[in-house]
Amino acid sequence: MLSKKIQAALAGSSAIRAMFVEGKELAAKVGEENVFDFSLGNPATPAPEAVKQAIKDLVDQTDPLILHGYMSNSGYEDVRKAVADNLNSRFGTDFTWKNIVMTVGAAGGLNIVFKTILDPGDEVIVFAPYFGEYRSYAANFDAAVVEVAPDYETFEPDLAAFEAAFTDKTKAVVINTPNNPTGVIYSDKTMRRIAQILLEKESEYKKEIYLVSDEPYRELIYDGAKENFLTKYYHNTIVGYSFSKSLSLPGERIGYIAVPNEVTDAENMLAGIEVANRTLGFVNAPSLIQKAAAACINEKTNLDFYDKNRKVLYEGLSRLGFTCIKPQGAFYLWLKSPVENEAEFVAAAKKYNLILVKGSAFGCSGYVRLAYCISNEKIVRSLDAFAKLAKEYHLGE
Amino acid sequence: MLSKKIQAALAGSSAIRAMFVEGKELAAKVGEENVFDFSLGNPATPAPEAVKQAIKDLVDQTDPLILHGYMSNSGYEDVRKAVADNLNSRFGTDFTWKNIVMTVGAAGGLNIVFKTILDPGDEVIVFAPYFGEYRSYAANFDAAVVEVAPDYETFEPDLAAFEAAFTDKTKAVVINTPNNPTGVIYSDKTMRRIAQILLEKESEYKKEIYLVSDEPYRELIYDGAKENFLTKYYHNTIVGYSFSKSLSLPGERIGYIAVPNEVTDAENMLAGIEVANRTLGFVNAPSLIQKAAAACINEKTNLDFYDKNRKVLYEGLSRLGFTCIKPQGAFYLWLKSPVENEAEFVAAAKKYNLILVKGSAFGCSGYVRLAYCISNEKIVRSLDAFAKLAKEYHLGE
Repeated sequence: MLSKKIQAALAGSSAIRAMFVEGKELAAKVGEENVFDFSLGNPATPAPEAVKQAIKDLVDQTDPLILHGYMSNSGYEDVRKAVADNLNSRFGTDFTWKNIVMTVGAAGGLNIVFKTILDPGDEVIVFAPYFGEYRSYAANFDAAVVEVAPDYETFEPDLAAFEAAFTDKTKAVVINTPNNPTGVIYSDKTMRRIAQILLEKESEYKKEIYLVSDEPYRELIYDGAKENFLTKYYHNTIVGYSFSKSLSLPGERIGYIAVPNEVTDAENMLAGIEVANRTLGFVNAPSLIQKAAAACINEKTNLDFYDKNRKVLYEGLSRLGFTCIKPQGAFYLWLKSPVENEAEFVAAAKKYNLILVKGSAFGCSGYVRLAYCISNEKIVRSLDAFAKLAKEYHLGE
Repeated sequence: MLSKKIQAALAGSSAIRAMFVEGKELAAKVGEENVFDFSLGNPATPAPEAVKQAIKDLVDQTDPLILHGYMSNSGYEDVRKAVADNLNSRFGTDFTWKNIVMTVGAAGGLNIVFKTILDPGDEVIVFAPYFGEYRSYAANFDAAVVEVAPDYETFEPDLAAFEAAFTDKTKAVVINTPNNPTGVIYSDKTMRRIAQILLEKESEYKKEIYLVSDEPYRELIYDGAKENFLTKYYHNTIVGYSFSKSLSLPGERIGYIAVPNEVTDAENMLAGIEVANRTLGFVNAPSLIQKAAAACINEKTNLDFYDKNRKVLYEGLSRLGFTCIKPQGAFYLWLKSPVENEAEFVAAAKKYNLILVKGSAFGCSGYVRLAYCISNEKIVRSLDAFAKLAKEYHLGE
């Protein structure tokens, strides 16, 4: 007899994971080399060589009672200091180690932040399309997401719709730029307007409204775009970060939360976050990997790998007559389904061993997501399959 | 503006962590070597040497895309198989990898199990004294713990009180043997009676009632006691395990859940646990450490280290006139406060630089807990401080 929430979750489980499983099943049938699996955001370029050396040095040189032992629930002070220093040097912030809490990935971080700020019945505004797990994370605390539709030209938020989405129950706004699933980077102008609206709404409703910035793709940007850090726009901004993409460590579950001093009652917020980290059962971020991430904090992932995929896929699909949003960051391509019901399109693609994820999983039907973090050779070969799919829909004719 | 739950949690935060912080503050004042900090269950004997080698071999020999990559939310199949095989060979169980889910420590595992089975308003029976975090974990899902008083001679559960504690809201019973905070191992006879009562109550209330066994101390047993595995007593038993103590890896957050096929609708339960693992934000247990734990699954911690501490402390304190429950397992000693209000006793102990944790943190006032996972040299020296404390209370006179 499972809990009602888990019964419901089982019924409507992750569309991304479901497609990942379908891809695996298909691979067992037709051979893995013949399946073009664009379902999962699993980094395809290995962790920098420095990570390997850092881990070996750590086990050789650190007392195992420290390396594998308990520390403060918020993480090792030296690791938190390394993160604070890194952010300060890159973004001109003024963090100390106390502003940083190490977390079990960004997913852990978001749950900790939600636990700390959300009461049952609260509303969390999200910008569609958005990472569907936000729904589960809000539901963990009996809060609900309120979806704001995008501008369908740019896939930036529709700011009039954003303004209209606030109620007296709004406690937080989640933002994710570079965006999963569109690859869009919100412009500086958009960010400034979002901040302005938030300030107005805080004043209107006479309470704190938090901007929660989910930043796993911060460093995955192309065409000379500049890395951004969102705390500069709005005082009540809390950042959740993950090293999953920047260091290709998704399985290790390592990330952090940054709470600037500008956040109302920041010290109390950080105390709440520390308690939430413990009571949710995370206890602390994995210890060895905390120290490895700190040692490798200036390492960079192989951006060229993704950029090459991005170009081949975007140009190839556009040439075939598909309507694509040009990705500016992350490793996703957002493609308009040639038919209104994109589930039908996803099923048609599967006939050609193309595994896509339907947009409704991201609160935005009529589109599909392609995660282009697979080998370039496969991307190139996939274009033949896409050509057949395009022909089926009479694209480019 | 923090959530109401976190505000309440901040007000009544972990007494164990609070004493740990007091210990650190005291250490800063009088020097760490002069503080006898019995507050935290932090293993004091290092991880087996094999762990170091396993980690180095893994980073040298494993494709980093696999070693640090996403796998199934329930963990690597080979790691789950290693756990299943290990349990089967030791306890005669018949697990396959599908019965095992790797988790972010036992704390993560318990939260996942609770998420999977608890609805708001449900009750979880716990045997006092018990690890106080169970309260937080149940509260995460709006369930409440119902405390069953111990037999004050043996500190096994009072089974008549247990029988009387069930209501139509009872969904689970949490058991922890070897026990934190008492060090007591529940006897085979007690376990069989608990199972019998559970069967009767399932029949009476016509629903599943789960026995959730929290087993981080399974291997920490003394005086020739035999390792026990609780699934043999009762069909609806779910085991949560942690490598924190057995491999001295508490900071790494690595453990597992075992769901035997005998559990009602086990397959569905495992599917629910997989979803809960993901939606709670754990996603998966840390990847490298999963593989390191599997490689070291037959390694043992230095039990002699703890056993020596146990004997010196138990014999020393008994000789001074303190009333102690003789520890049979784990690394805790449970001591009767010479005064009814044990908070007063804890404060008196602090004058002699002795950091103890009050029993009320474990739902059992009038007692204190000592975690004897510190150096033997300190344990020996602490007896002089305890002698002064004993004198203050006119013990042994």
